[in-house]
Amino acid sequence: MKNTILVVGSVALDSVQTIHGRTKRALGGSAVHFSLSASRFSPVQMVGVVGEDFPAPFRRFLKRRNICQKGIEVLPGKTFHWKGKYDRDFKNATTIATELNVFQHFQPRLNSEHSGCGVLFLANIDPDLQRKVLDQMGKPRLVACDTMNYWISLKKPSLLKLLRKVDMLFVNEEECRQLTGEYNLIKAARLIMKMGPKGIIVKRGDAGAMLFFKDNVLSVPAHPIEKVVDPTGAGDTFAGGFMGYLAAAPDWKNFNVIRRAMSYGTVMSSFSVEDFSVKRVGRLSKGEISSRYKKYVDALNIK
Amino acid sequence: MKNTILVVGSVALDSVQTIHGRTKRALGGSAVHFSLSASRFSPVQMVGVVGEDFPAPFRRFLKRRNICQKGIEVLPGKTFHWKGKYDRDFKNATTIATELNVFQHFQPRLNSEHSGCGVLFLANIDPDLQRKVLDQMGKPRLVACDTMNYWISLKKPSLLKLLRKVDMLFVNEEECRQLTGEYNLIKAARLIMKMGPKGIIVKRGDAGAMLFFKDNVLSVPAHPIEKVVDPTGAGDTFAGGFMGYLAAAPDWKNFNVIRRAMSYGTVMSSFSVEDFSVKRVGRLSKGEISSRYKKYVDALNIK
Repeated sequence: MKNTILVVGSVALDSVQTIHGRTKRALGGSAVHFSLSASRFSPVQMVGVVGEDFPAPFRRFLKRRNICQKGIEVLPGKTFHWKGKYDRDFKNATTIATELNVFQHFQPRLNSEHSGCGVLFLANIDPDLQRKVLDQMGKPRLVACDTMNYWISLKKPSLLKLLRKVDMLFVNEEECRQLTGEYNLIKAARLIMKMGPKGIIVKRGDAGAMLFFKDNVLSVPAHPIEKVVDPTGAGDTFAGGFMGYLAAAPDWKNFNVIRRAMSYGTVMSSFSVEDFSVKRVGRLSKGEISSRYKKYVDALNIK
Repeated sequence: MKNTILVVGSVALDSVQTIHGRTKRALGGSAVHFSLSASRFSPVQMVGVVGEDFPAPFRRFLKRRNICQKGIEVLPGKTFHWKGKYDRDFKNATTIATELNVFQHFQPRLNSEHSGCGVLFLANIDPDLQRKVLDQMGKPRLVACDTMNYWISLKKPSLLKLLRKVDMLFVNEEECRQLTGEYNLIKAARLIMKMGPKGIIVKRGDAGAMLFFKDNVLSVPAHPIEKVVDPTGAGDTFAGGFMGYLAAAPDWKNFNVIRRAMSYGTVMSSFSVEDFSVKRVGRLSKGEISSRYKKYVDALNIK
């Protein structure tokens, strides 16, 4: 159980429109994107909630990827549905509709298998719920969480309480600034580390990602993608690759291990944007992952 | 002369305001930023124009860096003066005043030393002038140029004629798109390469830089800087480090050489933003350059 990752987050149906087409009620949600990515490296157990309309083929799809769904509760009603649209530059998503449905009543309940997991990823949900999950855990050796601007403005005290107990935090640049009031990313990250986390991963879209870990600062580029089809879930896919790799490593606090995790996160998220929903990540072969990883790492190995 | 770089561009006095302070009539201009950076790697000769007001200490400063100023013409009148302001995010410069002064009448004239240089960098000036310079050259083994949105809209035919004879082009993302009408950077770069250049360097500010060279695509991150004071000239400083390194190398078309050049460009530009004008780059020690280069390259060497 030491290497097993428990992920708690949303399971959703996404209707997304981009310049390259659209998708209707496709498989989505932070826990799903995370799991499909992380499960390529480590065993994953999901905790989440769906409605009675959640398609059986999606359950089977997740099962084929060896993702444990015992923690997926089915509640009367409909599954969380997000409908959104991206501009040509993919920088901003315009939300057309957010139907929380059963997700509104999500109360994560962990069984003994869940609470025994060595690694925990708290996807972007209400920090009150994230804390409730953490309270139910045994002694995980690695805890990471994601959050968003909405919770930083609405529930900052609760989020701050959570951060005290978290090892790694995933944020974007704006959230980093919002959380600290500091514009400079390096300074902002240092301030956040004083709030609890040992490490911060700042997701920067096509500008790559930055890692702050203890005294280290690392900036890595995105893997150049010729055709970005749908960026939905790219951040959770990054987190999945990152956490999946860390969970499988004997010592996740080793900086070389963390640097490799950043690269796997980058590579997995580069796949995720190449098609709608989980189409690309859900069907990746091991060879595709390892060859893109090699290409990415070799290009940066400047001799 | 094989390794000597000729740079043709502006020599200016810059009055810049940022959140960290302001500077008045400080040393600036594309040819100056380029030269101070490039001269750390290869001999540099400048061609440009200044007015009678151009301060003697600035001439001495450039001389101490072994930059040949024989090609700096002094015309009656005042030196090119740019006055601008940056917002907190340093993304956009607001021009308060552009006084072209003697720069308006700039007609680059090369002597036999200039035309015998092995490497040519055409900084961002009117493409008609860039072409006139190229016509006066002997047989340079490496020609690179910079340009800007203004020339792409106003003098595209002339720019396209120039590009046919250029090995490397420096642009930013917007210019890349504007030049081709293609939004995706990779596709846009490929289209530009069909116009002539073997390589394109896309400068992306704090998102780093991308290189397209023949079939290779390389994205490198910026070196994280804690306190950005003034981004003026960062692009030319990048080009200077890049071209300076290439000029000194026995075979500039070797992709490993080009990757190192990208890193030196990144490192030099990371210094340039740390202080106003040329304060930082003009006073760098060899040790500072090599230790930041090592730090940058080592961090990206993911094992």
